Amino acid sequence: MSWISYDATSEFPIQNIPFGVFVPAAGAPRCGTRIGDSVVDLSVLQKAGLFNGPVLNGSDCFSKDVLNDFMGMGQPAWREARAKIQELFAADNGTLRDNAELRGQAVVDQSSVTMCLPARVGDYTDFYASKEHATNVGKLFRPGQPPLLPNWTHLPVGYHGRASSVVVSGTPVRRPRGQTKPPDATAPSYTVSRLLDFELEMGFFVGPANALGDPVKMSQASDRIFGMVLLNDWSARDIQPWEYVPLGPFGAKNFGTTISAWVVTMDALAPFRCPGPEQDPTPLPYLNQPNERRSIDINLTIGIQPPGAAEPTVLSNTNLRYMYWSLEQMLVHHSVTGCNMQPGDLCGTGTISGPEQFGSMLEITWRGANPVKVGEEERKFINDGDNVHLRGHCQGEGFRVGFGECTGVVLPAHPIEDI
Amino acid sequence: MSWISYDATSEFPIQNIPFGVFVPAAGAPRCGTRIGDSVVDLSVLQKAGLFNGPVLNGSDCFSKDVLNDFMGMGQPAWREARAKIQELFAADNGTLRDNAELRGQAVVDQSSVTMCLPARVGDYTDFYASKEHATNVGKLFRPGQPPLLPNWTHLPVGYHGRASSVVVSGTPVRRPRGQTKPPDATAPSYTVSRLLDFELEMGFFVGPANALGDPVKMSQASDRIFGMVLLNDWSARDIQPWEYVPLGPFGAKNFGTTISAWVVTMDALAPFRCPGPEQDPTPLPYLNQPNERRSIDINLTIGIQPPGAAEPTVLSNTNLRYMYWSLEQMLVHHSVTGCNMQPGDLCGTGTISGPEQFGSMLEITWRGANPVKVGEEERKFINDGDNVHLRGHCQGEGFRVGFGECTGVVLPAHPIEDI
Ligand SMILES: [Ca+2]
Ligand SMILES: [Ca+2]
Ligand SMILES: [Mg+2]
Ligand SMILES: [Mg+2]
Ligand code: NI
Repeated sequence: MSWISYDATSEFPIQNIPFGVFVPAAGAPRCGTRIGDSVVDLSVLQKAGLFNGPVLNGSDCFSKDVLNDFMGMGQPAWREARAKIQELFAADNGTLRDNAELRGQAVVDQSSVTMCLPARVGDYTDFYASKEHATNVGKLFRPGQPPLLPNWTHLPVGYHGRASSVVVSGTPVRRPRGQTKPPDATAPSYTVSRLLDFELEMGFFVGPANALGDPVKMSQASDRIFGMVLLNDWSARDIQPWEYVPLGPFGAKNFGTTISAWVVTMDALAPFRCPGPEQDPTPLPYLNQPNERRSIDINLTIGIQPPGAAEPTVLSNTNLRYMYWSLEQMLVHHSVTGCNMQPGDLCGTGTISGPEQFGSMLEITWRGANPVKVGEEERKFINDGDNVHLRGHCQGEGFRVGFGECTGVVLPAHPIEDI
Repeated sequence: MSWISYDATSEFPIQNIPFGVFVPAAGAPRCGTRIGDSVVDLSVLQKAGLFNGPVLNGSDCFSKDVLNDFMGMGQPAWREARAKIQELFAADNGTLRDNAELRGQAVVDQSSVTMCLPARVGDYTDFYASKEHATNVGKLFRPGQPPLLPNWTHLPVGYHGRASSVVVSGTPVRRPRGQTKPPDATAPSYTVSRLLDFELEMGFFVGPANALGDPVKMSQASDRIFGMVLLNDWSARDIQPWEYVPLGPFGAKNFGTTISAWVVTMDALAPFRCPGPEQDPTPLPYLNQPNERRSIDINLTIGIQPPGAAEPTVLSNTNLRYMYWSLEQMLVHHSVTGCNMQPGDLCGTGTISGPEQFGSMLEITWRGANPVKVGEEERKFINDGDNVHLRGHCQGEGFRVGFGECTGVVLPAHPIEDI
């Protein structure tokens, strides 16, 4: 236990120790962690000389306005920082607890800070690693054809996404306009998107870089992943089917991707490792990975909170463990041809559906055929003013390791004639 | 004419004034321009107070190690800098010519410097804007189906590429390994890519940003484009067809994209504006643009120089003017759903084929069916050790505006068993 008090449902117990970037009430952005409802300013602790271990000693990594430098320092730095923070905040440690001045500078209430993007995202990639989601989308977008393409069980299919439009939880997202062509129309038109959707995903941040031309090997992969966030890949379902052939999603996705602010480290998630789905056929040797700890048991929900509603209505419960491909397999395949991965690069898992779980409105309402109740209202897709909430946590014995919230309110589109 | 001498075939006369980043014989990277065979250190001129116009006065933009800040300052800054440089280097201007000390610091031979990437590329996007190239690839990758998909004539199809692997001319590129599955094989295998290809493209750098959710309008587009480079989109043709469905090219492309070092401004290219192909059907209003100056007359060649050869053998002559979609249309469509474009973002045009011109080995040899002579040798695709050369220039009356070289040598793949 910590000398900071929190209850058993807190997502930020001392077993978590996520990393993030925040702006305090007065001052510049800096790196922090969160315990219970407190945000800890790691730049203050670092300047006070408390990170005095062999790896971090002398570093000013936590005074930066992004975590990229820290992410690039690798496992030894991450473990040393985590262990030191857990030591300083343990119930029996007086270093900070009994130093009112330093404690007052370093520990602030979470409501007094503004969270920022945790990293400068050099490149963002989105995978498509849920077999059930890929099958559902195949049925809806390519009716009459085999829903799962032949490559899908041999490699984690993914595409390069747009890095500039990755935003932190709480950032409003503008409903897009674009080209749409219903199947029965003879020509496309320029319209406001009517079929705005979320995709319930998780993302992982890359740690140390590999050089261009030198792929990450499976034996190296787990040390190259810093941690995870919740990720909402906003998607315009009426724009997507018209534009995405043959080179993939573009404007239907690049108007916004929302991530949660706190990056939960792979060390914090390690106790929740579990097997994933059996992989048949066995992947090629460069991609092959034992199954005992291939996945992670992370409970996920998505909900919609309409304007004026007190609470979001949860529309789906799912779990990361349903993903067919693992994070390590995604990273290895991403770099197999030599692609250089860099600290702060973000990879999305793809929509996390499951055998009976759906991670998007496209699937939940089967493209609007089966509307769902949201409080007193009905939804086929997302309305203007709706706030989309993702949540996620791992359940330990008497504690939770959680991700905090990943939210975004939909702003109405700009007028269609304003071009 | 300039007091720096060069002949009529120089690609860098005083009418050009490209911008780039270089490392001098001693010192840190900084911004420069090139006139004839001389590189001009713009940070020296800026520190000497010579950029004293209303926009650039007080700025240290040329002391940076990337051009992003300058790109973000917009047309007024670009025009002021260009005009000042043309003034200082005009034959009759003695300011620098007659100041031996300052001239010695600012003007160095191009052979004494190392060129760097001109910008930190936040996001890289590749379009597919040549009708002939899209048709040829469709025939080869989707035999028996209509080669051009129905959306192609309605919008500039493009995909998000990999920013981290954009490298500057002269950087070697490692032949990739990856998953391939020939049509007659029952399962994929992990192999060294045998069908390594180039794509002769051009790229443009984005200037001032638009905010997320606020698309660039056609009326704004030309002021948001800073300048152009040559671009080689290296492509593994045996990896691409297996992996690219349904989300687009990934490992077949993300191992390297080479660009030329000097960015030629849109002002330098303005005299060479010309009509492009007629667009039928007429694009939707948000994308529509008069045709008189929609394209640019830029002569392009691509050649291969095998190890030991004195010269590259030119395999194709083409021209940017064959591109169906314009740069402005690409930019507008890229942001139509609200995507925020940022200074230093790079957009590739796609392979520049033409009615009788081919911009890739895939097309030149029709996937190996018709090998070509390269000096005394024969090629179906690119061999290890081959140096791939792109060149490009606009021909004025008595002068050229050129791009310098865009080259890259292919290194042999890592051993296949090293995974
Ligand atoms: Ca997605
Ligand atoms: Ca290309
Ligand atoms: Mg998105
Ligand atoms: Mg490439
Ligand atoms: Ni990117």
